[in-house]
Amino acid sequence: METKRLGRQTVRLAHPPRVVSFANVGGKMEGKGPLSGDFDQLDDDPFFGKDTWEQGESELQRRALQRALDKASLRPEALDLVLSGDLLNQCIGSSFGLREFGIPFYGVYAACSTMGEGLSLAAMQVDSGYVNLSAAVTSSHFCTAERQYRQPIPYGSQRTPTAQWTVTGAGCCILGRTGDGPAVTHIVRGKMVDMGITDAANMGAAMAPAACDTLSVLFRETHTRPADYDLIVTGDLGQLGHDVVLDLMARDGWDLGDRYNDCGLMIYDRENQDMHAGGSGAGCSASVLCGHLLRGMAAGKWRRIVFAPTGALLSPTSTFQGESIPGICHAVVFENQPEI
Amino acid sequence: METKRLGRQTVRLAHPPRVVSFANVGGKMEGKGPLSGDFDQLDDDPFFGKDTWEQGESELQRRALQRALDKASLRPEALDLVLSGDLLNQCIGSSFGLREFGIPFYGVYAACSTMGEGLSLAAMQVDSGYVNLSAAVTSSHFCTAERQYRQPIPYGSQRTPTAQWTVTGAGCCILGRTGDGPAVTHIVRGKMVDMGITDAANMGAAMAPAACDTLSVLFRETHTRPADYDLIVTGDLGQLGHDVVLDLMARDGWDLGDRYNDCGLMIYDRENQDMHAGGSGAGCSASVLCGHLLRGMAAGKWRRIVFAPTGALLSPTSTFQGESIPGICHAVVFENQPEI
Repeated sequence: METKRLGRQTVRLAHPPRVVSFANVGGKMEGKGPLSGDFDQLDDDPFFGKDTWEQGESELQRRALQRALDKASLRPEALDLVLSGDLLNQCIGSSFGLREFGIPFYGVYAACSTMGEGLSLAAMQVDSGYVNLSAAVTSSHFCTAERQYRQPIPYGSQRTPTAQWTVTGAGCCILGRTGDGPAVTHIVRGKMVDMGITDAANMGAAMAPAACDTLSVLFRETHTRPADYDLIVTGDLGQLGHDVVLDLMARDGWDLGDRYNDCGLMIYDRENQDMHAGGSGAGCSASVLCGHLLRGMAAGKWRRIVFAPTGALLSPTSTFQGESIPGICHAVVFENQPEI
Repeated sequence: METKRLGRQTVRLAHPPRVVSFANVGGKMEGKGPLSGDFDQLDDDPFFGKDTWEQGESELQRRALQRALDKASLRPEALDLVLSGDLLNQCIGSSFGLREFGIPFYGVYAACSTMGEGLSLAAMQVDSGYVNLSAAVTSSHFCTAERQYRQPIPYGSQRTPTAQWTVTGAGCCILGRTGDGPAVTHIVRGKMVDMGITDAANMGAAMAPAACDTLSVLFRETHTRPADYDLIVTGDLGQLGHDVVLDLMARDGWDLGDRYNDCGLMIYDRENQDMHAGGSGAGCSASVLCGHLLRGMAAGKWRRIVFAPTGALLSPTSTFQGESIPGICHAVVFENQPEI
């Protein structure tokens, strides 16, 4: 099977890269949620042993990569490339978290869709032989995100019903040319979709149209239907965005039905954890993928899944200046036994 | 010639992508500098017709991409991918600048080395057939950078002798599979190098070791010497960083000599424009490449050049928290008549 540009946005990989290893790390709230058993490491300390929250977020990335390396008995020297980004200004969660490994480094930024972009690029780098092994990493942290995007934590601000809770967590996935793990068979490069929504406390609604755009492109350019996948997951649309996706897709004739879920709805018990519309952050989809989802595939629970995290490409400055919120969604298809 | 991973960091491209088009846009100070004749467009208005400096920076990216499309008589639909990033928090210069084109979009972040990373990834995407045409874009803006990284402009802060002046400019380069333009023959993926420098007003010195690391890797993994290239340019090291590179490389036995220059030294007349150590910013190397350098190659002035912009992967927050400055350098080799 040849690598094929199936359309403007979808690529079928000729030599589907395999998941060689994966790991995730979470914080206190993630440890109280329904996926707590699917984390490699949980830590109640929001500083993760460091002096500041930002250093703590870097530590999350460092631990996720180190754990993924350890699980496959790999040394950092074995990796030719790591792709990473995060929500902090200038992506310092990534640069300071991964600095010590000495692995060639590409910074990527797609807000909460960063794991989608990083994995897509890692998969294509492996598929085309530019690298032997490549990792994609990302993180988010409730305290750093609140401080940077909203209000200082000690203010105890009231949250709106549509607000989501930024996941404190990181995920790392290492891809290689061979192995028995799930394979990445297709990627879809997302394009920005902006429907004019300006409410930065309702990101799910702002990002949902981008998810619909990318999922529609995937089905159309691969000539598949939702029923061809066992699970279709978005990253952190939360309850509101989830419902918008179901509705918009149905209008276009795509019935996602029960096979559709959202990492932001999976990671917390919204009722008992007071999580409003659900979890969010780049670390939400990354830690759910690099735990619950890839473990589930290994256990044979799902054979073929679409991982389609969405990102909101705004900043506090753009919001202050009255701009609307451009959304984006980069998708990756994982398959247990690709037909090659 | 096969695509070859020549080493851990260097890739030789089997089907060297061609520069299909390029364009740059600059501001008032760039128009007063020695390279003013090499800009497609110069505008004295720091707002570029918009309401805020940030929107002005987005407009710079929009104009650079539109101009590059126009010069090749291309419509946005012809591009399968655009890679872009910038120095603003959450890279809003890129997202809001490129939103309206509807082109699949990967955000990249490598600080002032962003054009190096974006071009590398664009070249590999074209080389491997994942896309037909791909663009790399980036920008910086003196006023947005001062406001975000240093002091509000109206304060009129004193600048240190080692300080550099952030270039107000953007560059865009479109790569494709065929054409008569210069080809991208090799790319080098940089790794982070942190020598413990903490002075955020002396970025040139902080980033210089990363440039040396990447250039040494290029020479070693391709079995070439500095004399094999007509021009070797770093991005924005300024006078101090430039001298550090010459010195460190000489100690390792690499004589860069007169063929080495730095975009930050080329873009301004430091004496008459009061530019202290030189120009800086992601838009510095991007606008010099997508004007002076690629025009010079087209005119036969240079046959083979190394474009090696460096980035400092810090943020104001990391500096406040006492962190040192990790540097990175991603390199791209352009050649007029590649030996294929």
